[in-house]
Amino acid sequence: MNAPTPIAHLQPQAAPRDVPQALLDALKARFGTQFSTALVVREQHGRDESAFSIAPPAAVVFAESTADVSDAVKLAAQYKVPVIPFGVGSSLEGHLLAVQGGISIDVSRMNQVLSINAEDLTVTVQPGVTRKALNEAVKSTGLFFPIDPGADATIGGMSATRASGTNAVRYGTMRENVLALEVVTASGEVIRTGTRAKKSSAGYDLTRLMVGSEGTLGVMTEVTVKLYPLPEAVMAATCSFSSLAAAVNTTIALIQLGVPIARCELLDANTIRAVNVHSKLSLRESAMLLMEFHGSPEGVKEQVATVQDIASDLGGDAFEWAQTPEERTRLWTARHNAYFAGIQSRPGCRAITTDTCVPISRLADALLDSVTEANEAGIPYFMVGHVGDGNFHMGYLIDPDSADERVLAEKLNTQLVERALKLGGTCTGEHGVGLHKMEFLRTEAGDGAVDMMRTIKRALDPDNILNPGKIFSI
Amino acid sequence: MNAPTPIAHLQPQAAPRDVPQALLDALKARFGTQFSTALVVREQHGRDESAFSIAPPAAVVFAESTADVSDAVKLAAQYKVPVIPFGVGSSLEGHLLAVQGGISIDVSRMNQVLSINAEDLTVTVQPGVTRKALNEAVKSTGLFFPIDPGADATIGGMSATRASGTNAVRYGTMRENVLALEVVTASGEVIRTGTRAKKSSAGYDLTRLMVGSEGTLGVMTEVTVKLYPLPEAVMAATCSFSSLAAAVNTTIALIQLGVPIARCELLDANTIRAVNVHSKLSLRESAMLLMEFHGSPEGVKEQVATVQDIASDLGGDAFEWAQTPEERTRLWTARHNAYFAGIQSRPGCRAITTDTCVPISRLADALLDSVTEANEAGIPYFMVGHVGDGNFHMGYLIDPDSADERVLAEKLNTQLVERALKLGGTCTGEHGVGLHKMEFLRTEAGDGAVDMMRTIKRALDPDNILNPGKIFSI
Repeated sequence: MNAPTPIAHLQPQAAPRDVPQALLDALKARFGTQFSTALVVREQHGRDESAFSIAPPAAVVFAESTADVSDAVKLAAQYKVPVIPFGVGSSLEGHLLAVQGGISIDVSRMNQVLSINAEDLTVTVQPGVTRKALNEAVKSTGLFFPIDPGADATIGGMSATRASGTNAVRYGTMRENVLALEVVTASGEVIRTGTRAKKSSAGYDLTRLMVGSEGTLGVMTEVTVKLYPLPEAVMAATCSFSSLAAAVNTTIALIQLGVPIARCELLDANTIRAVNVHSKLSLRESAMLLMEFHGSPEGVKEQVATVQDIASDLGGDAFEWAQTPEERTRLWTARHNAYFAGIQSRPGCRAITTDTCVPISRLADALLDSVTEANEAGIPYFMVGHVGDGNFHMGYLIDPDSADERVLAEKLNTQLVERALKLGGTCTGEHGVGLHKMEFLRTEAGDGAVDMMRTIKRALDPDNILNPGKIFSI
Repeated sequence: MNAPTPIAHLQPQAAPRDVPQALLDALKARFGTQFSTALVVREQHGRDESAFSIAPPAAVVFAESTADVSDAVKLAAQYKVPVIPFGVGSSLEGHLLAVQGGISIDVSRMNQVLSINAEDLTVTVQPGVTRKALNEAVKSTGLFFPIDPGADATIGGMSATRASGTNAVRYGTMRENVLALEVVTASGEVIRTGTRAKKSSAGYDLTRLMVGSEGTLGVMTEVTVKLYPLPEAVMAATCSFSSLAAAVNTTIALIQLGVPIARCELLDANTIRAVNVHSKLSLRESAMLLMEFHGSPEGVKEQVATVQDIASDLGGDAFEWAQTPEERTRLWTARHNAYFAGIQSRPGCRAITTDTCVPISRLADALLDSVTEANEAGIPYFMVGHVGDGNFHMGYLIDPDSADERVLAEKLNTQLVERALKLGGTCTGEHGVGLHKMEFLRTEAGDGAVDMMRTIKRALDPDNILNPGKIFSI
């Protein structure tokens, strides 16, 4: 943890462990050109999209197979040296930083789509396949993989953080969509969890235990996920609201009515302004819902009519339709770039992001007060929300060299999390705990549950070599 | 395990542990009239719907609160005596038998609906609430709880076995529908897992670890589940087919097309015959799909049209509609009674049930060969299937006193499971492992994964007091 000022809710880390030259030599001998200790490579692997300073690993192994991962872990285990799985580095919570030393296992070259079982609506991939590459690979089958966290993250990374994003309101998160895994354990053994059957009661749900374990219980080397038939009809629309409250209340009403909306995203005026600049758009600079409807032509019409009624009752403007696939893509690309648009709205800044998720009826309470607090504090921010799930993100844009700004952002973050927990929610809807939410996790889950998690961690990884310092600091 | 003849795939159990008089005295002192050692009570709690002989606990505690469960577990832990949670006894896999001795903790009196959060589509209940009682309690809200394993099982029992049944094809299983739990651990400590937020990435998914753990990792004392808006329109229909293959192929096609059918159940001619006798119906005695469609009036019409087209292409008869809610209820009651109808078709018999689930494209291979084998063996049976999920059950009807019949049934069961595993499926879609599928679990998951499960079990329950002998024999 390299924050210039101590932040109350960040737990101190154990000191980085030594990486003996003998291990580096053994890795070099085994992996040859798939192994690097170059500073630039190590620095690339010791950072992510969070505001934490770089903590480079001692070396990077570029795994190309399950055997590579297994051998790398076995060698590291021999020396009790940490291993940190790395995909494309899109974590927002410091998951990839070598805060306790060790080596990074980069799986981005494990990017094969291993088997497309279109007739079963499943696909098995290596962990380095990104969600866009996966969708490209299955395009000709008439199926698609809906989970979309914004970034073109790897399926391995998305599984490890239990990611979700837009579309989750209809299709669920990685929790619901990973069917089976191949995992390298702390001893380097290769195990399989789950099957391609849609459901199972066969023993403990190791698949769900691994999903969201942030690399601390095993390194995923194969992931089998569900696919869905491409909807017959897709319509996307924006609807502007005179107030953030009206947009949130529209969302709450449509979820409570059970409208099977596929995407329901909220951006505040502040964020639209940044998106307009970044993506050269001219969206009205007020609170906006960006929605997508999937289904049969008739079904989509029904959904749209229902949502239009609700929105209009609650003060929304007329819908503006993305009429063509190109327009739709442009709109969603703008939404996906909201994070970068936010960052670029303050040159040189880094974002401290929040990720609470609350029961849908409490969304207005959670979100509106958080925005008010940010405005009152005068901190630059952006706000985007997968509001259909009760999940939203504030991105506080801080000068990374300003301790005061960092402290202020973390204070706002703490207030926001405490509010969400009081409302029955969670400190992280989809980003994971990483380095950033350990203390929040303890408040949320309680000592008993966190101790149970740690008991499992210690049992499965007695030498604490699997991504140590994430979820738990020691 | 009290089978008269050893069955190859049943693992031997450790000897029952002594239950010291001091523990019985302490329980009596703490629980008074909530405590019983009467033989009739113990025998009621030492059996279930499986074909295993009774293995009564040494005593039964009737818990009425979380504190009761916690205290009972604490006392048992002090003496390292097993505890077996008991709901209504509808397990099919021997989960409730005190095969290693111990005391039963009956939670059926913990039957309060604690909070209905209609505006969030969630409800929190005590574990002894049955699914029908839950639906009765939420009826006035316009919401319902869809998971329906047939039996009027408790929400605790359904969570513990990761149950599903009809409706799961659309609404998922207990895996997808349990949001949060209160659990008493092996030391008697009370912990909470999950929140009422729809999604979360906050640490290990203890909720999903507990769901399906069959009482071996903790005793559930509160369960929060999702509710769904009652569909605007519901239509139920039967469709008869000249062959089982045609019915199965219709199912496969409609799932592959993504039809959001709510229920898709298969009964073979044999089973229809038993159902007709049991429920005084006159359904045509051939393979039949029993289907239900949920949605808007238009949406339901679209689904029906699609399925009628498929069925008619593949040799199905015209649909027969259940026109009124009463007719619909009668039809589904008949389906739910198929198990008892089967049992009653052979007076004095018990059923050895199978529960494989395969990827949908392999359903015909899995199911048709299993039926052929049963017919060739000349064993009486019934066959019902949640075929939309790739899950079906054979119930081999054996004379409980005939070792030969038991051996034959278990041989057919073994062949059926081995076939399902070769097809990428699981040995149990929804009943759990219990006493009956430990060896199958090892074949399915592999030694590495089962060893990981056992490592977790040992870490969380070092004295092996939580329902020992289930999932793992020792």
